[in-house]
Amino acid sequence: MFVRNNRLQYPVRVDKSDPVFAKQVQELIGGHYGEFTVMVQYLFQSWGMRGVDGNPKLKMIKDMLLDTAAEEIMHVEMLATMVGLLLNGTSPEQQAQGAANPAVAAVLGGMNPQHMIVSGLAAMVADSNGNPWSGAFVTASGNIVPDLYDNAVKEMQGRLQTSRVYELTDDPGVHDTLSFMLSRDLLHQQQFLAAIEELGGPTAVLPVPIQRTADTLGENAKYAYAFMGYAEDPSTSTAGQGRWASGPSLDGKGEYSYIAELFALGHAENLPPAPAKVYDGLPGDPTGQVQTPRQVSNGDGAASKGEGIINKLADTIKG
Amino acid sequence: MFVRNNRLQYPVRVDKSDPVFAKQVQELIGGHYGEFTVMVQYLFQSWGMRGVDGNPKLKMIKDMLLDTAAEEIMHVEMLATMVGLLLNGTSPEQQAQGAANPAVAAVLGGMNPQHMIVSGLAAMVADSNGNPWSGAFVTASGNIVPDLYDNAVKEMQGRLQTSRVYELTDDPGVHDTLSFMLSRDLLHQQQFLAAIEELGGPTAVLPVPIQRTADTLGENAKYAYAFMGYAEDPSTSTAGQGRWASGPSLDGKGEYSYIAELFALGHAENLPPAPAKVYDGLPGDPTGQVQTPRQVSNGDGAASKGEGIINKLADTIKG
Amino acid sequence: MFVRNNRLQYPVRVDKSDPVFAKQVQELIGGHYGEFTVMVQYLFQSWGMRGVDGNPKLKMIKDMLLDTAAEEIMHVEMLATMVGLLLNGTSPEQQAQGAANPAVAAVLGGMNPQHMIVSGLAAMVADSNGNPWSGAFVTASGNIVPDLYDNAVKEMQGRLQTSRVYELTDDPGVHDTLSFMLSRDLLHQQQFLAAIEELGGPTAVLPVPIQRTADTLGENAKYAYAFMGYAEDPSTSTAGQGRWASGPSLDGKGEYSYIAELFALGHAENLPPAPAKVYDGLPGDPTGQVQTPRQVSNGDGAASKGEGIINKLADTIKG
Amino acid sequence: MFVRNNRLQYPVRVDKSDPVFAKQVQELIGGHYGEFTVMVQYLFQSWGMRGVDGNPKLKMIKDMLLDTAAEEIMHVEMLATMVGLLLNGTSPEQQAQGAANPAVAAVLGGMNPQHMIVSGLAAMVADSNGNPWSGAFVTASGNIVPDLYDNAVKEMQGRLQTSRVYELTDDPGVHDTLSFMLSRDLLHQQQFLAAIEELGGPTAVLPVPIQRTADTLGENAKYAYAFMGYAEDPSTSTAGQGRWASGPSLDGKGEYSYIAELFALGHAENLPPAPAKVYDGLPGDPTGQVQTPRQVSNGDGAASKGEGIINKLADTIKG
Amino acid sequence: MFVRNNRLQYPVRVDKSDPVFAKQVQELIGGHYGEFTVMVQYLFQSWGMRGVDGNPKLKMIKDMLLDTAAEEIMHVEMLATMVGLLLNGTSPEQQAQGAANPAVAAVLGGMNPQHMIVSGLAAMVADSNGNPWSGAFVTASGNIVPDLYDNAVKEMQGRLQTSRVYELTDDPGVHDTLSFMLSRDLLHQQQFLAAIEELGGPTAVLPVPIQRTADTLGENAKYAYAFMGYAEDPSTSTAGQGRWASGPSLDGKGEYSYIAELFALGHAENLPPAPAKVYDGLPGDPTGQVQTPRQVSNGDGAASKGEGIINKLADTIKG
Amino acid sequence: MFVRNNRLQYPVRVDKSDPVFAKQVQELIGGHYGEFTVMVQYLFQSWGMRGVDGNPKLKMIKDMLLDTAAEEIMHVEMLATMVGLLLNGTSPEQQAQGAANPAVAAVLGGMNPQHMIVSGLAAMVADSNGNPWSGAFVTASGNIVPDLYDNAVKEMQGRLQTSRVYELTDDPGVHDTLSFMLSRDLLHQQQFLAAIEELGGPTAVLPVPIQRTADTLGENAKYAYAFMGYAEDPSTSTAGQGRWASGPSLDGKGEYSYIAELFALGHAENLPPAPAKVYDGLPGDPTGQVQTPRQVSNGDGAASKGEGIINKLADTIKG
Repeated sequence: MFVRNNRLQYPVRVDKSDPVFAKQVQELIGGHYGEFTVMVQYLFQSWGMRGVDGNPKLKMIKDMLLDTAAEEIMHVEMLATMVGLLLNGTSPEQQAQGAANPAVAAVLGGMNPQHMIVSGLAAMVADSNGNPWSGAFVTASGNIVPDLYDNAVKEMQGRLQTSRVYELTDDPGVHDTLSFMLSRDLLHQQQFLAAIEELGGPTAVLPVPIQRTADTLGENAKYAYAFMGYAEDPSTSTAGQGRWASGPSLDGKGEYSYIAELFALGHAENLPPAPAKVYDGLPGDPTGQVQTPRQVSNGDGAASKGEGIINKLADTIKG
Repeated sequence: MFVRNNRLQYPVRVDKSDPVFAKQVQELIGGHYGEFTVMVQYLFQSWGMRGVDGNPKLKMIKDMLLDTAAEEIMHVEMLATMVGLLLNGTSPEQQAQGAANPAVAAVLGGMNPQHMIVSGLAAMVADSNGNPWSGAFVTASGNIVPDLYDNAVKEMQGRLQTSRVYELTDDPGVHDTLSFMLSRDLLHQQQFLAAIEELGGPTAVLPVPIQRTADTLGENAKYAYAFMGYAEDPSTSTAGQGRWASGPSLDGKGEYSYIAELFALGHAENLPPAPAKVYDGLPGDPTGQVQTPRQVSNGDGAASKGEGIINKLADTIKG
Repeated sequence: MFVRNNRLQYPVRVDKSDPVFAKQVQELIGGHYGEFTVMVQYLFQSWGMRGVDGNPKLKMIKDMLLDTAAEEIMHVEMLATMVGLLLNGTSPEQQAQGAANPAVAAVLGGMNPQHMIVSGLAAMVADSNGNPWSGAFVTASGNIVPDLYDNAVKEMQGRLQTSRVYELTDDPGVHDTLSFMLSRDLLHQQQFLAAIEELGGPTAVLPVPIQRTADTLGENAKYAYAFMGYAEDPSTSTAGQGRWASGPSLDGKGEYSYIAELFALGHAENLPPAPAKVYDGLPGDPTGQVQTPRQVSNGDGAASKGEGIINKLADTIKG
Repeated sequence: MFVRNNRLQYPVRVDKSDPVFAKQVQELIGGHYGEFTVMVQYLFQSWGMRGVDGNPKLKMIKDMLLDTAAEEIMHVEMLATMVGLLLNGTSPEQQAQGAANPAVAAVLGGMNPQHMIVSGLAAMVADSNGNPWSGAFVTASGNIVPDLYDNAVKEMQGRLQTSRVYELTDDPGVHDTLSFMLSRDLLHQQQFLAAIEELGGPTAVLPVPIQRTADTLGENAKYAYAFMGYAEDPSTSTAGQGRWASGPSLDGKGEYSYIAELFALGHAENLPPAPAKVYDGLPGDPTGQVQTPRQVSNGDGAASKGEGIINKLADTIKG
Repeated sequence: MFVRNNRLQYPVRVDKSDPVFAKQVQELIGGHYGEFTVMVQYLFQSWGMRGVDGNPKLKMIKDMLLDTAAEEIMHVEMLATMVGLLLNGTSPEQQAQGAANPAVAAVLGGMNPQHMIVSGLAAMVADSNGNPWSGAFVTASGNIVPDLYDNAVKEMQGRLQTSRVYELTDDPGVHDTLSFMLSRDLLHQQQFLAAIEELGGPTAVLPVPIQRTADTLGENAKYAYAFMGYAEDPSTSTAGQGRWASGPSLDGKGEYSYIAELFALGHAENLPPAPAKVYDGLPGDPTGQVQTPRQVSNGDGAASKGEGIINKLADTIKG
Repeated sequence: MFVRNNRLQYPVRVDKSDPVFAKQVQELIGGHYGEFTVMVQYLFQSWGMRGVDGNPKLKMIKDMLLDTAAEEIMHVEMLATMVGLLLNGTSPEQQAQGAANPAVAAVLGGMNPQHMIVSGLAAMVADSNGNPWSGAFVTASGNIVPDLYDNAVKEMQGRLQTSRVYELTDDPGVHDTLSFMLSRDLLHQQQFLAAIEELGGPTAVLPVPIQRTADTLGENAKYAYAFMGYAEDPSTSTAGQGRWASGPSLDGKGEYSYIAELFALGHAENLPPAPAKVYDGLPGDPTGQVQTPRQVSNGDGAASKGEGIINKLADTIKG
């Protein structure tokens, strides 16, 4: 059973819209190693677990997987919100006018055309090349040990990709959000290995990439050692009793803790309307489906009038 | 933000294991019109909505989509549990021994081989032919009206397929669970049309297939008119204010109601261990990963000794 | 521009229903080398041809490709009709009752479950394993010579597969229809090579597989040398002027001819209603969508009461 | 049975070549909601219909589906022609020279590389991200009512996407052709709902997006109420007897009519040869396959010497 | 550079043909965790490695990856040979005659139809459900540490699946071959972790599944500690200098060794001709492509007259 | 059995890095007609051949297929190396800084984002649009004649695409390598037709595209007539006895020869480290996984300081 709450787990801030970067962030949503994959993987691993009755360690691991699955849904939610904000203000007319401005042509030629035509300026269930996500990405073998290893490895590749996407922008808002996620993925990597340890198996602790460990994550480093429970009724969950929820951290750099209350620093984040020609059927849409005027924000800030990176580039080239 | 709870929304009961039927139920999970598709579709539609601020009707629809998305996660959970129970007790040795018994060969030849080899007797993110689910099945255009229509149509095809799968078995436990889901899909169909009505658009009410409407759903018909909220904090949700939550039903056969508290009739359902040769690493596994003995259930009931449909068939043919 | 006519190009006769064979015939529709592939391939090759103006040979080839594309649509139509007839009378209840009869279980376990659940006893755009057809199967390079070679090779593989499917049944009706198609594919193989000859390139003539050439196709061999035009207004087409439309055949065994009038030996073939529990919404459906009673045919003949191969098998095993 | 005719249903005019826009138009051909999907969907729905014999309403609907399937083949044909014209004159050397000109680099970096390498400047069976079309996009359930709803919904999403693509260019020729198609899709949306009405079901009429209804389609609005039959022999078709072919229109803005004669305003449109280095094997190709010189048009008009949008951009940046 | 040699790395013996088991073995070839995936993964990881010059440890790892990639090609070769032998003697007529024998129907209904229609009784690049292999299964990130972990994890899942497939038959020949492969995969798992150790990272050793470690692999256990080099000129390779090639084994149960000479216990294994109606164009084929008679073996041994598991089943049911 | 050797078959030289061209070269690796397809196709055709024992011609063809399969592995190796070199020096920061420079934005917008995020500047198993390679591209029917024709046709399309990619750059190093491959593909085309001739079938010789035949391939033309054996022990191979290995060439322009010794003109080619922010875990990586400094080359030559095409473009636009 899943219960929802409109708050985001952590604030998503985008300081300037950037449709090309929006395309790249899709890798972190719908790529082989994106958050959508681990969200579905943890759900199906916990739903497919056998022999939990009478086996408290397995019960603990099932609870842990469900908590983290819930958290991964929130990560997809945060990244989908980020893509939406990055696409703020991108309009079809820019493309039509692009013929007169190579800078605009460059940016729009590099964006994902389906963000304009298919999703109406929203995230899709696809990777950075627009390949749809595939159920074949999910690993859930019914044998928990190799699956826990696979979880740890998927988080490694995920952290590596997140680190690379982090470098593809210098937007401080995006940096803050991705840094939070890197911190969480660090924890997740370790918690799956701690679970193997609980089962008596040998473990290894190697955050990948190493750079973005507690030493370099700044403020967000504190989230790298806190297991967050998302049980609607914590009294029924044993996820706080695992090796991942107390004691010295596996990387020797911190102390694990357990947050039983629902952790959510973000508020509900609503996207502004799209430009009129995207035909979103909202107030101000020339289609007349709704009657009231709209405020089009482009993500450049409260009173923004420009179009983010596109205007900036266009200005450059005019100069 | 999503919060979890180990209870099922509704009990899942399987009276006898049946690996061929397990393969067919996969269509309702990972097929084009399976529950996984609508779960992801409603998530991405709500996350991609624009212009919600200052537009109470859209806020209401966003809340409604999130509530129903949460419910659809539970439907996938229930169906994954059902597939797991249907696969109880199916073992690799049966296949190896099948050469001596055509009835066993018939059943095992008709099962999904990946249920044995890949998932270890658990549900997969795939359809009844084993095709992995694809992100291309999701429709979220950024224009809420055609998307609401698409939602209604996806529920139509989903109900049709559920009705057909219902007829593929005579297991009363399965019938009860699927009947509950048919009832919920009937509501969902209507609620999306009611939302179009809220926005001032013309609507149509045609449950598909017609047969399985309130008239024929028996006890479960009462769930066809109750919108269930799954807001962790109901005071922040406006989903109960929509056309779908009160007043006469669109099909003229009932009265809509709103259940704000978290509805869950099922309990946490844990699957029994797999037969030893499935190598699940659990107690009793010859691999020795764990030390204690296991109870293998085959889904035929508390004291079952047989292997469900396989034994039954084998008996038949021996006679 | 395409114009339709409900007649089939050649009669489709199925003497007994057989859901397992229906699954196999899907390879000839939606497989890599199925008729759907060549249908789309010839359409896109002709639509993408460049430099036709002022080049009569290319105009002739474009006309030829369009005629054969039209014919391939009819071949898909014939095979879709064949699959529908093979599925006549297969019902969900048989599956539910299969537990008591291994013969029924064997047959239903071997059928494509989506034929029951998804398409309601009709053909799908997929291959014999249920993999959906992919646009990646189409070859249209914008250079006509390698594309004509590819066309010839696709017809080779197609003939080989058709020959193998032919052997998978002993139904005389199916044999007659497939034999007509083998005859047509033989012509198509040769006509593409003749077109290369028209362009001055070297050609090769090797019907694959060799067995099913004019010598062994019986009555239908006559169709292996007749190019059929499907121009709505033959006076605008030059397809009859090609090497493939007159003169000795490339395989030295016949004389090419040109049939300008619309060739169609078949009549419009309508499928009988499905069993009630397939929920097709037709008269007699318990859903009540329509009011009049239905005649369920099962493809065993005009007054058939059985269920084709399933009943036959069931009888066998009872004996 | 299908018969072809080289005329286009409506003229396709492209005033300037534009390879980036060509990539985007692919969404309308091979995307989930492209014309190829509905073309195949209507074909398989009509071929898979059961119970037509003795049921005149179903016969009428089968005829209607076949007529519209024929029309959709023509729509794919028109869009494939449009993509070909948009790619006129794009050459590999431009790319090689792009290093010296960022404007050229911008345009070519934004085009679909397979339009150059794989199809030789022609349309492909793929979407705007180059994902191949999939047979899984087709909905044909064997139950006509939910399928008619699905048809209406697919046309809604299709119209929405066409409207967005329309805004991505200011080419008046493209605007005229797409406007015709929007008009036809409006009719198709309504005709499927009218068919549900014929069957006694409730219907809804909401053209999506609303803007592009009869009020705003200008000259082409007249095509929004005319059902076009494409029966080779109209005397055998009953498609003209449906609710969609006479009486007041469902949107209350017009009067339905029936055009039995084959409607085709366009002429046969042949693409000019490709630039030499595309190796199309045509006259003038340095490969020598053919001997006569070629005229390379680039779509900028009869005597064009430039390269469309690329030259225009390059000029801009030089200035 | 790769050089070939017709010998198999280890003998492939199949004691009785079994088309259903052939379908299941496909998972080990073309599944997500099949040998084809690791073969391609190690090739692309080694080809994509950066910074090897001047870094002897990386050079050593690149050599090691190439040796193991070569070995994995041989594993695909062995499994493809196994599938071929398992399909010996399966013929289309059996299917056509199946109507009279439910046992035959059971077996043939459970086989992969494409093994008959598409590949002519040979292995395909697909999994046990017939899904084609996808390039998306390959992980090669350009960062060697997470990739080595992923390699170890892929071998874990691979071993688990091989163990399960092992239990699906009781054919001693197949058991011997798969047991050799389990032994090699155990080594590979450990060698990737040893390579991480070489780079200074922490490692873990947990063969999955544990059962099939050196203790239980019998004779073949000796292959679990021997790194096999496949360098055409061993003097240029440093793969024998790694932690995986000497010293105590990571699992504490053996001593690593290095076999520099090309290890191959198997001989060249040629498949017998297919039954005539498979149309393989060989001597005896009624197509007449070749002139001499054929010997059809069915894999039941030198003088076999039956059809393996099918005959056996048929006998059973007759009795 | 396959044996490896780190030398390349022919030198791969890239004179300037170019990430957009790297994306296009992917078509030649992982596209439908890329080298990966033919590599796998020849492997599975040879492994699946039946009836080789006692049939020397088939033995000869099996040897020939294995030799050429080995060569195709090397071609994939060469192209993967080429893509790696083309991506030298491309860094994430360029993207982040792109906002200030439309030329950089144009280039990076046109590159494959997964080359940065997923593969860390290395080749992928995908085509030029980033679609993963599919096992469905492989043709291996078990009937050698149509398969040999298909091989010839795949080489035709491959040569056509290679010729087009050749024109997309003016890099002389790339031209030399691709020219070698065109020469080899010309031979392969002919050798498959020669094999059909050996079997008594009619053949055709039409190199496609014609231009790039022996007359125009310069120095590399000599490779168009030399069959290269890659047998580890040539005394066991009969591939040198085929029609393709001696006598006048099928195109009448040369004399076939047989090179039994392992042909390899290239040396082992190691890629330089990636820029630091790609996180490759190598010396100099800020992650600290390794300790020594790195040399970053960007492919512009030994002492290059720029970033290849990006810097060049940036300079242009600044000027």
